[in-house]
Amino acid sequence: MATIAPSRRVRRTPFTPGVEAAGVTGYTVYNHMLLPARFASPEEDYHHLKRHVQVWDVACERQVQITGPDARRLMDLISPRDLDKMAADQCFYIPVIGRDGGMLNDPVALQPRPGVWWISVADGDYWQYVLGVADAIGLDVDVSEPDVSPLGVQGPKADDLMVRVFGETIRDLRFFRHVTLPFDGHDLVIARSGYSKQGGFEIYVDDSAMGMPLWAALIAAGEDLGVRAGCPNLIERVEGGLLSYGNDMTRENTPFEAGLARFVNSPLDYIGKTALASRPAKRMIRAVTIEGEIPACDRLWQVFSDGRVVGQVTSAVWSPDFQTNVAIGMLEASHWDAGARIEVGTQDGMRHALVRDRFWI
Amino acid sequence: MATIAPSRRVRRTPFTPGVEAAGVTGYTVYNHMLLPARFASPEEDYHHLKRHVQVWDVACERQVQITGPDARRLMDLISPRDLDKMAADQCFYIPVIGRDGGMLNDPVALQPRPGVWWISVADGDYWQYVLGVADAIGLDVDVSEPDVSPLGVQGPKADDLMVRVFGETIRDLRFFRHVTLPFDGHDLVIARSGYSKQGGFEIYVDDSAMGMPLWAALIAAGEDLGVRAGCPNLIERVEGGLLSYGNDMTRENTPFEAGLARFVNSPLDYIGKTALASRPAKRMIRAVTIEGEIPACDRLWQVFSDGRVVGQVTSAVWSPDFQTNVAIGMLEASHWDAGARIEVGTQDGMRHALVRDRFWI
Repeated sequence: MATIAPSRRVRRTPFTPGVEAAGVTGYTVYNHMLLPARFASPEEDYHHLKRHVQVWDVACERQVQITGPDARRLMDLISPRDLDKMAADQCFYIPVIGRDGGMLNDPVALQPRPGVWWISVADGDYWQYVLGVADAIGLDVDVSEPDVSPLGVQGPKADDLMVRVFGETIRDLRFFRHVTLPFDGHDLVIARSGYSKQGGFEIYVDDSAMGMPLWAALIAAGEDLGVRAGCPNLIERVEGGLLSYGNDMTRENTPFEAGLARFVNSPLDYIGKTALASRPAKRMIRAVTIEGEIPACDRLWQVFSDGRVVGQVTSAVWSPDFQTNVAIGMLEASHWDAGARIEVGTQDGMRHALVRDRFWI
Repeated sequence: MATIAPSRRVRRTPFTPGVEAAGVTGYTVYNHMLLPARFASPEEDYHHLKRHVQVWDVACERQVQITGPDARRLMDLISPRDLDKMAADQCFYIPVIGRDGGMLNDPVALQPRPGVWWISVADGDYWQYVLGVADAIGLDVDVSEPDVSPLGVQGPKADDLMVRVFGETIRDLRFFRHVTLPFDGHDLVIARSGYSKQGGFEIYVDDSAMGMPLWAALIAAGEDLGVRAGCPNLIERVEGGLLSYGNDMTRENTPFEAGLARFVNSPLDYIGKTALASRPAKRMIRAVTIEGEIPACDRLWQVFSDGRVVGQVTSAVWSPDFQTNVAIGMLEASHWDAGARIEVGTQDGMRHALVRDRFWI
């Protein structure tokens, strides 16, 4: 297995010293930044995440910050979701699209304070799209990447750990809402959110210098809770049906195909609205169980039925808890109903598989 | 050293089987794609590149393809360089910018055939900017990423190798010009270009299925020339002063600061023109020699003089041929003249350094 070459272009994060000290053994690159992908083994990391609490370096969830007089106008132009329905303390998952209706990212938008928008992006330079729109129309906005690095606290004991650092009020925070609380005299935006189904928080660390002190405080406070460094876990996210832009959906797909129709409800004339109206889903995200042994899903696997391509699988891995290969696929209408039998073409050969009615949750 | 985690999001290329068979030992990620970074050792790869010929998987140099009635209008909007001066067979290096004059990429544009533009990009989703501009104005264009994967043939024996696969006419190809020649009955665009100073070619493989047959043909034809798999080499590129977007310049910098003023000459009202007129360079790319031992330059190194920050170093490595640490920095006017003495702050401590008048070429 090849190692990852050091360079400034693949950016370190404010938490990288903590990640390295914790013995990271696998990285990926996400938004031109290091994202830890493995500490002990994927299985050990997974069991720990589902039982205890982990601190995650998810600094790679970069913010596209929009400010200025036309900030809301720009947001309205790019959001398929009705922003009038967003509460001041709410995190809004938005499948953003281009003029043809194809997905460009699936970020979470929030307003850390009035007049400031953060679009917390999945992998991709979506800021370039936002900037292109603003530059072309001549909007009076500033589009930037601020010094904001999310730190995740994930797992069933996340509340217990966070209370020790931020106080009891953190327990009252609702899902996908944010609150501002101090650490070491510095106010930090904290949301109940995160890329796992185990519950937890994301702390928007808006000063790199605070990164390691906060990391160290969380690790120290959680010793008896079994806290350790962790990272988004492939097994857990596939079990939970958490989508990954670039893996499970791309510009080829509409939000409808990604199963995100409920987030498409803006009454305004946003970019791509016309196209979406004429692109009903011809394929849809589905949970898939694959039989037999499978290799690493490091490429798109075509899905077949009677020799005809009827979809694709884009994430797949063995689940120790469910004792099956869990997978995320996109299936055509003829095969997207639960119970449909399909064949998955891996690099190691064809495997029998079954479409399910839900993910493993 | 941590390995890189497999996932579809970090895309394999048409040449990855060849790269793996050749024993790649280091990767980086570039445009959401695997880019080999090391085979034997950086030093061995370097010596080989400067003496023989290598085949490079540079599929990560993705094309932003623009077609449609408004294609030229869109190109004129985003190009600071005068496209009227671009010959039909020419490759045009263009420092592309946003409205504030900051660089968004430094791609090479070409027209593989009339009516079709390819913008061959450095690391970054510049297609999102192009699409944002097109979507916002409502231009009649199609912006896509076609199935085009460049394969590099680099090194002093590159001509000798290419002749054996594409015929003698390849020798007549001028620098940064392209020609269309057949391989296995399929026409391929070939340019005399590449990310080294050793000479060579880039073959725009526009059908993934042709990737490995072409790779294998080049390796087989060059056995007596000592051909082997290679990749852009950090030592060689710093010696030659080849810039890397994301390392040596970012959106913070104008083309002037990156030393690219000669490519800013369009008479049209392109986006960012007004801003550039009011942003003369306050700092400039320079070659820097650093004394003593240095660690891997995996982060920005601040440059000091009398305790004041006067610039930064963003790429640095030991050069076996020149027996010194070669580096690329960006220095303020007070210290950008050759002979200026500076201090470089590495993660292992401060190092004495000297600004040079040119790179090692």
